[in-house]
Amino acid sequence: MKVGARSWRAPQRFFSVSRRLAEILDAAALPDRIVPHYQKTKTSSLLSLQWPRPPRNILLMPKLHAPSVTVSAVEFAKHIHSNYPGLNLVFEDHVARDIHETLPFPIFTVEPSEAAVKFAQKIDLVTTMGGDGTILRAASLFSTHNRVPPILSFSMGTLGFLGEWKFEEYKRAWRECYMSGCPATTEDLVVPHTRAAGTGPQIGSEMAASEAEWESVRGNGKCMGLNRSSKILLRNRLRVGIYDEHGRNINDQLVPTATAAPDLGLGKLPASSATPLSLHAINEVSIDRGVHPHLAILDIYVNNHFLTEVVADGILISTPTGSTAYSLSAGGSIVHPLVKSLLITPISPRSLSFRPLVLPLHTKVVLKLSKRNRGRELPVSIDGKRRVNVTIGMEVRVEGERLEKSDVEGWRGGVPCVIRAPTKGDSGGIAEDDDSWVGGLNGLLKFNYPFGASGEH
Amino acid sequence: MKVGARSWRAPQRFFSVSRRLAEILDAAALPDRIVPHYQKTKTSSLLSLQWPRPPRNILLMPKLHAPSVTVSAVEFAKHIHSNYPGLNLVFEDHVARDIHETLPFPIFTVEPSEAAVKFAQKIDLVTTMGGDGTILRAASLFSTHNRVPPILSFSMGTLGFLGEWKFEEYKRAWRECYMSGCPATTEDLVVPHTRAAGTGPQIGSEMAASEAEWESVRGNGKCMGLNRSSKILLRNRLRVGIYDEHGRNINDQLVPTATAAPDLGLGKLPASSATPLSLHAINEVSIDRGVHPHLAILDIYVNNHFLTEVVADGILISTPTGSTAYSLSAGGSIVHPLVKSLLITPISPRSLSFRPLVLPLHTKVVLKLSKRNRGRELPVSIDGKRRVNVTIGMEVRVEGERLEKSDVEGWRGGVPCVIRAPTKGDSGGIAEDDDSWVGGLNGLLKFNYPFGASGEH
Amino acid sequence: MKVGARSWRAPQRFFSVSRRLAEILDAAALPDRIVPHYQKTKTSSLLSLQWPRPPRNILLMPKLHAPSVTVSAVEFAKHIHSNYPGLNLVFEDHVARDIHETLPFPIFTVEPSEAAVKFAQKIDLVTTMGGDGTILRAASLFSTHNRVPPILSFSMGTLGFLGEWKFEEYKRAWRECYMSGCPATTEDLVVPHTRAAGTGPQIGSEMAASEAEWESVRGNGKCMGLNRSSKILLRNRLRVGIYDEHGRNINDQLVPTATAAPDLGLGKLPASSATPLSLHAINEVSIDRGVHPHLAILDIYVNNHFLTEVVADGILISTPTGSTAYSLSAGGSIVHPLVKSLLITPISPRSLSFRPLVLPLHTKVVLKLSKRNRGRELPVSIDGKRRVNVTIGMEVRVEGERLEKSDVEGWRGGVPCVIRAPTKGDSGGIAEDDDSWVGGLNGLLKFNYPFGASGEH
Amino acid sequence: MKVGARSWRAPQRFFSVSRRLAEILDAAALPDRIVPHYQKTKTSSLLSLQWPRPPRNILLMPKLHAPSVTVSAVEFAKHIHSNYPGLNLVFEDHVARDIHETLPFPIFTVEPSEAAVKFAQKIDLVTTMGGDGTILRAASLFSTHNRVPPILSFSMGTLGFLGEWKFEEYKRAWRECYMSGCPATTEDLVVPHTRAAGTGPQIGSEMAASEAEWESVRGNGKCMGLNRSSKILLRNRLRVGIYDEHGRNINDQLVPTATAAPDLGLGKLPASSATPLSLHAINEVSIDRGVHPHLAILDIYVNNHFLTEVVADGILISTPTGSTAYSLSAGGSIVHPLVKSLLITPISPRSLSFRPLVLPLHTKVVLKLSKRNRGRELPVSIDGKRRVNVTIGMEVRVEGERLEKSDVEGWRGGVPCVIRAPTKGDSGGIAEDDDSWVGGLNGLLKFNYPFGASGEH
Ligand SMILES: NC(=O)C1=CN([C@@H]2O[C@H](COP(=O)(O)OP(=O)(O)OC[C@H]3O[C@@H](n4cnc5c(N)ncnc54)[C@H](O)[C@@H]3O)[C@@H](O)[C@H]2O)C=CC1
Ligand SMILES: NC(=O)C1=CN([C@@H]2O[C@H](COP(=O)(O)OP(=O)(O)OC[C@H]3O[C@@H](n4cnc5c(N)ncnc54)[C@H](O)[C@@H]3O)[C@@H](O)[C@H]2O)C=CC1
Ligand SMILES: NC(=O)C1=CN([C@@H]2O[C@H](COP(=O)(O)OP(=O)(O)OC[C@H]3O[C@@H](n4cnc5c(N)ncnc54)[C@H](O)[C@@H]3O)[C@@H](O)[C@H]2O)C=CC1
Ligand SMILES: NC(=O)C1=CN([C@@H]2O[C@H](COP(=O)(O)OP(=O)(O)OC[C@H]3O[C@@H](n4cnc5c(N)ncnc54)[C@H](O)[C@@H]3O)[C@@H](O)[C@H]2O)C=CC1
Repeated sequence: MKVGARSWRAPQRFFSVSRRLAEILDAAALPDRIVPHYQKTKTSSLLSLQWPRPPRNILLMPKLHAPSVTVSAVEFAKHIHSNYPGLNLVFEDHVARDIHETLPFPIFTVEPSEAAVKFAQKIDLVTTMGGDGTILRAASLFSTHNRVPPILSFSMGTLGFLGEWKFEEYKRAWRECYMSGCPATTEDLVVPHTRAAGTGPQIGSEMAASEAEWESVRGNGKCMGLNRSSKILLRNRLRVGIYDEHGRNINDQLVPTATAAPDLGLGKLPASSATPLSLHAINEVSIDRGVHPHLAILDIYVNNHFLTEVVADGILISTPTGSTAYSLSAGGSIVHPLVKSLLITPISPRSLSFRPLVLPLHTKVVLKLSKRNRGRELPVSIDGKRRVNVTIGMEVRVEGERLEKSDVEGWRGGVPCVIRAPTKGDSGGIAEDDDSWVGGLNGLLKFNYPFGASGEH
Repeated sequence: MKVGARSWRAPQRFFSVSRRLAEILDAAALPDRIVPHYQKTKTSSLLSLQWPRPPRNILLMPKLHAPSVTVSAVEFAKHIHSNYPGLNLVFEDHVARDIHETLPFPIFTVEPSEAAVKFAQKIDLVTTMGGDGTILRAASLFSTHNRVPPILSFSMGTLGFLGEWKFEEYKRAWRECYMSGCPATTEDLVVPHTRAAGTGPQIGSEMAASEAEWESVRGNGKCMGLNRSSKILLRNRLRVGIYDEHGRNINDQLVPTATAAPDLGLGKLPASSATPLSLHAINEVSIDRGVHPHLAILDIYVNNHFLTEVVADGILISTPTGSTAYSLSAGGSIVHPLVKSLLITPISPRSLSFRPLVLPLHTKVVLKLSKRNRGRELPVSIDGKRRVNVTIGMEVRVEGERLEKSDVEGWRGGVPCVIRAPTKGDSGGIAEDDDSWVGGLNGLLKFNYPFGASGEH
Repeated sequence: MKVGARSWRAPQRFFSVSRRLAEILDAAALPDRIVPHYQKTKTSSLLSLQWPRPPRNILLMPKLHAPSVTVSAVEFAKHIHSNYPGLNLVFEDHVARDIHETLPFPIFTVEPSEAAVKFAQKIDLVTTMGGDGTILRAASLFSTHNRVPPILSFSMGTLGFLGEWKFEEYKRAWRECYMSGCPATTEDLVVPHTRAAGTGPQIGSEMAASEAEWESVRGNGKCMGLNRSSKILLRNRLRVGIYDEHGRNINDQLVPTATAAPDLGLGKLPASSATPLSLHAINEVSIDRGVHPHLAILDIYVNNHFLTEVVADGILISTPTGSTAYSLSAGGSIVHPLVKSLLITPISPRSLSFRPLVLPLHTKVVLKLSKRNRGRELPVSIDGKRRVNVTIGMEVRVEGERLEKSDVEGWRGGVPCVIRAPTKGDSGGIAEDDDSWVGGLNGLLKFNYPFGASGEH
Repeated sequence: MKVGARSWRAPQRFFSVSRRLAEILDAAALPDRIVPHYQKTKTSSLLSLQWPRPPRNILLMPKLHAPSVTVSAVEFAKHIHSNYPGLNLVFEDHVARDIHETLPFPIFTVEPSEAAVKFAQKIDLVTTMGGDGTILRAASLFSTHNRVPPILSFSMGTLGFLGEWKFEEYKRAWRECYMSGCPATTEDLVVPHTRAAGTGPQIGSEMAASEAEWESVRGNGKCMGLNRSSKILLRNRLRVGIYDEHGRNINDQLVPTATAAPDLGLGKLPASSATPLSLHAINEVSIDRGVHPHLAILDIYVNNHFLTEVVADGILISTPTGSTAYSLSAGGSIVHPLVKSLLITPISPRSLSFRPLVLPLHTKVVLKLSKRNRGRELPVSIDGKRRVNVTIGMEVRVEGERLEKSDVEGWRGGVPCVIRAPTKGDSGGIAEDDDSWVGGLNGLLKFNYPFGASGEH
């Protein structure tokens, strides 16, 4: 399978059968990604992760500018390499160059300019290590695609609201996610055709091979609770289109912001071709006044009706996921990620009566720059990761991404996040329907933190 | 059909074939209600009202203590009587006694103590005339049932947020609603069996008869746009159960509040039998401190997880419909009624960090009185219309009512409200998906009302 | 001095020169109170407490219904009795009866019905032991007076925002407060006339006597930092007048609420005589809807101008002190107690645009019950401690209490609270201008409590 | 007096005794300004404007980029010129050049670079014509001075909250302001020494001359209510110091923002000399994240105590005047301009528990850039009119400006705004203590705007 892999950053080098340690290879040579299925379950409103066969290509994204996290990433990589030998570890270009010398086995990457396209073709699963910002960067890498690979996220040190797992749990977390959907008995494995229907085109022998991989891991003797599959929270996104004064989609003009590490991971978007580039936000789309001292003035349309003119620092169109991000700071309500909705939250509006709105997810929201802005430019941001300036006559169109499920292809849309299900010990009698969200409210947002309570609370 | 009707309030009187004018008859004698279907449509997220045959029994509810509204109710009743001769007009007992002398035809009612049961058996459609309070009273009449008849609401004078139609429009409004789902051509009418499937058990001749009624109205020459059906917004409700310290459901102890006119319309609930009385809120369930000067202390559980202890004036569990009622005053976001969710909004909480929450509709919320309340009683209210005191050890369980659609029986759950669709003139090019909600935000709630604007805005 | 003291609760008993242990005596027999002066200082915006001679009559108010606090009160009383022999300990009637048997010395009290009048005549200093509620009760005892004695407050167990001292510190706290203003050297003491000017009329011999008391304490060898005087925060109050439909002041109809222990400490107000009873709030005056399900409707006038009609659960007129109480829960800003102002904060107003107001302290605010309340009664509360119902036509007039300083009589108005100045150790280099308020914000209100912080913060 | 006036923009031209029409002269040649006194009054909490002699040099500031306002300015100027012949009309340089051709008499100006210094020397009274922005520009012109001339403000078209007068009233407004403090009878005028004490140094003859001016206007026959003086609201300001990492004041690095018309009116600040440039804000000092996508992190100190670390879009330190500006949008309370206080209001803080604070005016607030901002720059703005970037290690020190009144020199500090007192007709029985603030709340901010109200409200 890896025969023919061109080694990365050394195009002039000859083909080498025996790959050298610490080498960086081109991820283009990896097999195409495996798309998992997400099954409804009865006990939970979360979905169940079902790999048709074990995942092979893992994108590992450590937090930027955080040497200690890089150290942990190396530890994680080594663990994977020794215990899950068939797996290929992929990194963003700058990370790969940073760490490949410390790894006694080859790793993969793609050129930054090709990241948006190539990762989507190859990556089975993304593992982030860092805070919410790292998860947002991961989602941004796939923001033009409608089948984002599952994201397994570890919070490192500073806590994040979206991060699910503590790094200390990484072995269990990884195993649970890797094995998710793996048939419970060897019996199942040797009769693969019983599961074949609906799992897409698969070559029998390949399948057997990878199931052997599952088997090898399982055989490790660590096999407990394997038939328990990982829980997936499919986070809704917003589809965003930015249009110039001639009605042309200019999504391809969005550039990465500093926090998205333009020079590092998140490349420029591919120039829009015939069909406009579709783009998605997982937190929010925002327009604000930038450095301009004057208030921004925007007309908001909802399902083609004029809703209101907002005079403000800016405006946010958020997902429920984003309801605990910027929207919360701006005074929005906290909306559970399973509520199919979008939020309109003004930022410091010059009005006493602009209360945040929660609308159905499929609502079409259009933001138009009022003529009263007198020709200045306002920055539009997607998850604080990509940005472009808009000016009078331009408009930003936002709409909930449709989640579609076909029998053949499974789910399209959303960002599948692997949720930390409570272990047996944790859950003692507690309902399965725990998506750790309530815990996050209390533990991280200090929701309704009691007056007078001492630290131990 | 009306033979055998006992005249109301005169049980001692003899049977009278020729009913006298201005008589009040017992609604028990009316034919059983007709349950309409609600169809999904492509152009709108609202449903389409489909009468299998024309409605016959109309409950007309004017605002309490408002003589001018009573006058309008009489006008409306006369219009119905002359133009829709087959219809039976039903009133709450105290209204019937108030107005029957001014009406030159018999009307119907039931005893207050039987209202909750009888109306549900007989009423095809409710027409309210008044503000939001009148609509809430109408919904309260059916709060123990899961097939509330459609509500056609007229706002009278003071504006309400839930009221859809202006009284001036009553002829059009009524006609549109009455004809909704009526087959477009006479052809359809003469071949009733083409529609028979799925409309439930009907005796051919009766059907023909009632369709003749449709035909007679249609024949009136006012027939334009008849194949345009009424739009229905199915408002979600919350199922509420109040449990005493022994875990017994005590819903039957709720008594009408003053604003629900205990002595007038909204009778006591039937004593709970084997199966506990199911009860629904259309705005919210609230617990508050009543006249007690101390703060109320409540533990909130969400899907069996402890969420938080709230120390506050009280707490609201609201529907999206109720998001513009008490919850709005208490600082909650405005949630569109089509967002399947419930809201937890604290009332004057003694915490800086209790931000209103929006949770999935099917979330199970339990409110428990903390021991720290030291034995006092706190009033629980349903839509401000029914109330009972709870004390330590008791709990209030709330959950979104399930909306179910079966092929045979149609929709169960929710309150079907007839929406004022824009007329051709109004809509000029504007999307069909208008549920008047945006208009209400701007016109009634003065949402984002601009600074410095003069009155004309 | 105590000769002639009638022993309390035993009027039939004979006169007894040698008072028995554990006796309760009538506080009427105590010498009249000593009114301290409050001096402006240069280093702080707080005032400095200046006793012209040592205080003698101490009212000790432990928290209600809290046996463990009573135990501490006994400990405190014993400490005072042994170390400050000249002092008389006064208790509310029900407390006196509760604890007198555990005290090996006589204590004093007054009949509940006379508390409002007698305490004001006799008490030099109030010491509260409990939470904010106990301090509010103490202030309520003096709410009809304009020279409230200084209040030294200990928080016990559950923290309060107004409580200044931890009980563990009681020896230092008491000593500091008792000695405050005491001349620094013996020299000063023997030449009393050097301080005589401005300290009011004093009989030379009495003064010498009490200074001997100071001296005796000082002589104890614990004398360090004695010339450091206690800091006083003079908390502004609101003057409240409730007027019936004939313009008559009905302040005397206010009755204690449950939390004010009507049957225990806080007696009925003396019936208003020729001049209406003046009444003061330290937290706020509130009107709310009580148990009524309908919204309250009130007209607010500001300096005789109509300001607005509020439709709400209720309305609060708060002091800056009260800005961290109910007003905070209702969404008001936090106002430092030294800002001369009053706050108008609506409770759950049915309006998107009623933002809390902060007005000059001397503003005249009048609340009138709108006719639209349709004849019902609404409860008016003062600090949650006294309440009366008002009805249409009545009005509530509120105005900041004037703080006046005359050379002869010193300060009038406000509630003088003894502030916990940082000890040398604490203050290390820190400005003197610490009134512990910032600490309270962070420690108690969890102001701006950081996201994601673990307990130790 | 005007002999020697160099004509502006034509330094090469010869001296010309007979000034030509439409000429622009150098304001440097004007007599030095007359500083009025502000007297406390008994009937009002506003001050009374007392000119020791009639004002002579008027700075007329029309709104920028608003041709229609320029037309009105011309009308106003002509009225002044014909009716108050002794007055000198001064304009900002770009305005002067714009309009001098339309005026049949000479006008005055100064070079933009000298505006900050020269205007303070010469201007007796500022008249603004425009919205709040124009008033802010006027205040900014004097932001380095502690005796701002009185500002008479006309709102033009779009309403402003600070603007006091409608342009239609300009004749009455001007006359009232000009005559304010003028002695009531001729008698008074001929015996000037009766008023001489306390009005500062005046040469007898000059005084007589200017009083002749008053007399001439009065003699006009329009003399009614002349002894009624103009009411002044002295708006508090904040003193701002920006310090670099070496503790050096860098106020002189603030540059005008676009809305302050850098190239037009508001010149660069004079380079700071030995004593650092003192600078004042009338609305607020703000620090925000600018275009940076990351949150700003600031440490707030209050009177040298650490208060809190704010993680937010930014932070505002506002005056009560500014409480209805940006602070209101950011969720702050509305504070009456007579409440001596400053406000700390966070902008979209990432915390659920950062409630706006109102502190005593003399509080010392210091904002320090946290190291966690990782080296980026954040813009600091003063009233949205001047800006400079600060970076880690720098700090912004803010403190209420002291209002001082000396017998000899009168008031120092604050911005004296001429308030529109109600005319006799308006006031009918209404208290004098009207500073139009309540009217502004209702009329402009739509404070507590009632639900459901139709436009006419
Ligand atoms: N005033 C504010 O609150 C602002 C918030 N943001 C938010 O920051 C996001 C970008 O995040 P970073 O790249 O990490 O920038 P960042 O380093 O500025 O951090 C943003 C903060 O928001 C948290 N966060 C991000 N997404 C979250 C979510 N869905 N729920 C709860 N917390 C969340 C992060 O943990 C971090 O504390 C944007 O999508 C926007 O939502 C951006 C600008 C201003
Ligand atoms: N502080 C507050 O805002 C309070 C609000 N209420 C609300 O009043 C409701 C009962 O209504 P009424 O019987 O008319 O009592 P009511 O006569 O006290 O009026 C309540 C007000 O709320 C409005 N309203 C009711 N439901 C609404 C909705 N879904 N959306 C927008 N506005 C709505 C009504 O038009 C009326 O203006 C309760 O369900 C509760 O939501 C009840 C008590 C206090
Ligand atoms: N929803 C709310 O927040 C309500 C608040 N209250 C407040 O309670 C006060 C009466 O207090 P209690 O007798 O103790 O009744 P309570 O036992 O109901 O407690 C009120 C709470 O407010 C705190 N509190 C009282 N005054 C305070 C102040 N000035 N600053 C900060 N916290 C303060 C107390 O520590 C206690 O936690 C009233 O004056 C009113 O301000 C009363 C009713 C409802
Ligand atoms: N999100 C917001 O609300 C923002 C507000 N501002 C405010 O704008 C001010 C600068 O004003 P402009 O130069 O006119 O800029 P601008 O043209 O952006 O207008 C600011 C708005 O605030 C109003 N305003 C200004 N001062 C006011 C006051 N003291 N009370 C009530 N309303 C007031 C003005 O009438 C105008 O409507 C700043 O001092 C700041 O307070 C500046 C940026 C954002």
